[in-house]
Amino acid sequence: MPRLDSDQLLQFAATLPGWQLRPDALRRSFEFPDFVAAIQFVNDLAALAERQGHHPDIDIRYNRVSLTLSSHDSGGVTERDVTLATAINQLKSA
Amino acid sequence: MPRLDSDQLLQFAATLPGWQLRPDALRRSFEFPDFVAAIQFVNDLAALAERQGHHPDIDIRYNRVSLTLSSHDSGGVTERDVTLATAINQLKSA
Repeated sequence: MPRLDSDQLLQFAATLPGWQLRPDALRRSFEFPDFVAAIQFVNDLAALAERQGHHPDIDIRYNRVSLTLSSHDSGGVTERDVTLATAINQLKSA
Repeated sequence: MPRLDSDQLLQFAATLPGWQLRPDALRRSFEFPDFVAAIQFVNDLAALAERQGHHPDIDIRYNRVSLTLSSHDSGGVTERDVTLATAINQLKSA
């Protein structure tokens, strides 16, 4: 799957609120009331990632979860990352 | 709780196999067969951390989980970190 360049990424800006869009990776942090809520989100996210066969880097700092999405085999961001980021936003707003 | 200096940390070296012991933080990475197994470990670890009221930084990279333990309010490693690291080792070998 081809990596997306900056112009292509810009087309997704409107549909990916909250995400930092860069050709090398998509990044977003989420904050929760506490550690337990953060871990619950990680579990929901993990189930989603496993279903899509695409796994973000996940950094947990107490009640804050930071995600980095990249398609390492393509050397940057692809539509797979955009699809996963969109689903993660739906998860958070659910 | 006072932070431990290098000499004090050395006393724990024998009982904390696998951990990188530094006065600022204790660090260890664990590898698992796959992402699902890594997430299961994070859940077990999260329950343990919540019980101890002490929460490590947790970085998940597919099947690898890297932990950083530090007592931020003490400005470095304390016995709370050593206690949690010991319990994590027992978790992994369980």
